[in-house]
Amino acid sequence: MSFNLFPEIQADLKQVETELEKHVYTDHPTLTAASGHLLHAGGKRLRPAFVLLAGKFYEYSLERLLPLAVALELLHMATLVHDDVIDESDTRRGIPTVRAQWGNRVSVHAGDHLFARSLLLVARLNNPVISRVMAKTCVEMCAGEIQQMVSAFDADQNFRDYLYRIKRKTALLIAASCQLGAIAAGAGAGIVRALKWYGYYLGMAFQITDDILDMEADMVELGKPVGSDLRQGIMTLPIIVALHRTADPSLSELVVKREKSEEEVREAIRLIRDTGSIEASHRVARLYLVKAKQELERLPAIPTRYNLALIAEFVGQRTY
Amino acid sequence: MSFNLFPEIQADLKQVETELEKHVYTDHPTLTAASGHLLHAGGKRLRPAFVLLAGKFYEYSLERLLPLAVALELLHMATLVHDDVIDESDTRRGIPTVRAQWGNRVSVHAGDHLFARSLLLVARLNNPVISRVMAKTCVEMCAGEIQQMVSAFDADQNFRDYLYRIKRKTALLIAASCQLGAIAAGAGAGIVRALKWYGYYLGMAFQITDDILDMEADMVELGKPVGSDLRQGIMTLPIIVALHRTADPSLSELVVKREKSEEEVREAIRLIRDTGSIEASHRVARLYLVKAKQELERLPAIPTRYNLALIAEFVGQRTY
Repeated sequence: MSFNLFPEIQADLKQVETELEKHVYTDHPTLTAASGHLLHAGGKRLRPAFVLLAGKFYEYSLERLLPLAVALELLHMATLVHDDVIDESDTRRGIPTVRAQWGNRVSVHAGDHLFARSLLLVARLNNPVISRVMAKTCVEMCAGEIQQMVSAFDADQNFRDYLYRIKRKTALLIAASCQLGAIAAGAGAGIVRALKWYGYYLGMAFQITDDILDMEADMVELGKPVGSDLRQGIMTLPIIVALHRTADPSLSELVVKREKSEEEVREAIRLIRDTGSIEASHRVARLYLVKAKQELERLPAIPTRYNLALIAEFVGQRTY
Repeated sequence: MSFNLFPEIQADLKQVETELEKHVYTDHPTLTAASGHLLHAGGKRLRPAFVLLAGKFYEYSLERLLPLAVALELLHMATLVHDDVIDESDTRRGIPTVRAQWGNRVSVHAGDHLFARSLLLVARLNNPVISRVMAKTCVEMCAGEIQQMVSAFDADQNFRDYLYRIKRKTALLIAASCQLGAIAAGAGAGIVRALKWYGYYLGMAFQITDDILDMEADMVELGKPVGSDLRQGIMTLPIIVALHRTADPSLSELVVKREKSEEEVREAIRLIRDTGSIEASHRVARLYLVKAKQELERLPAIPTRYNLALIAEFVGQRTY
């Protein structure tokens, strides 16, 4: 997903980028480098984009939306940095993370710093409703992280466990981005609610698609090695569905194995794909996208509404 | 420092304890255990106490002060948990930390969770001024942590560098506790300002005393091994003063050495004490306490004012 998906806010997203640079900058070269490493590694800036797009549904004021857009991306970055703090016993991913380059301590402090900067931007908006939504989202995201951690390598998980986790991992922050953009623009309760639910459903579909892409052995565009969820023991939808569909015990044995060879990861992916669970997962993602698009019908028919529908289309077809 | 130092708020501090239990509790046994480990390890509850005491200077309402008191302690706990995340290469402390028992990952998530819960309590107060003070304090505390990290084992530090760090490590959060307690009670700007500065000066003295206690080889009441700052390469006031006073190169050699034996730590402490830097550091702490007490003179002469003066006396004499 690149910026041309958001034609009407392209110039404003550049300003988000400039502001992000400013907020990542500190007097401490190591910290700036660690946070900057993540910033310059790219990213879709999906959360800022949703803040700005949601702001189009009432009084669009970049001045008011900009700090919010930046705050949501900083919070997202903070969670990414902290996610990368792993135990010594864990296998390293194929790419250099902040942790891999600077160690756990810098990662923790860099994440805390991004979190605090995000918090400060939100506090300065002087809007208690926005502060509360942000805080609640943070608490839920933490609960999701913890659930992902404690349920790792546990093959005895169902669809509901999965939905609990991806709601907190992804959907709630995208929902908050849409909701808060609309609130900051002064939109009415009905518009705010529709945009929040659009963001929620879209976020669920986005994460399901992300989890499917982790199984697509021929994809290198994702920027992380294929099968990384399998290696980390994260039970994603394709894995959960496959475990329910197969009678072959070798899949569950592979899935719960803590240190897998490259060959074992490939074998697990093959077994998973053979059950048809990839297609089943795609169907679930599409159901969420239908629900996202239904929410859009509650919104005024401004061009942004079609842009949001286009984004939903794109999520269903994304290959990176 | 135990609760009998705060006679007039003793019953209310018990409620703080009950509320802390509630906020540390989650659906996740591991997380609850990790956060509870820290909660039950004790702690002086200095920040909640200052919130409540500051609240006595206008309209004391436990209902309004309680969430704030709990939020400040949760934030303090979050910083403690994250401080304990250390690199694999670092030496372990003598006592089991959250990290030592549950690993880095649980520590990061437990700290994030405590941080988010604190944030949510503050957001629910619906007071943008309080939200801003909290957020600013968080940003500064992060900067202090990072400075402590990057300046570790660097013997080329002066008094100002030290003050920069302890301001952020300790004084700002105690200042915020006093300031926010007064704000939540509806006190006027003059009272809020005096209490904030009282907390700031007291916090500076408190941290200097803490750093002195780390050099007192016969103290075991502190709950951490003596010389832990030396081991971690943190240049405290007694060390900085000693380095400026001595011509003996063996002290600076010992100080910058990353892995010190027990014998070397003891030798470094002996060299530091021989310079008279402990007494010099005590004098600096006393200067800050004089300033703290001067701020109290701006406050109405209610019994709490004498209690705050007593606390300042106590900080000057504390041995644990």
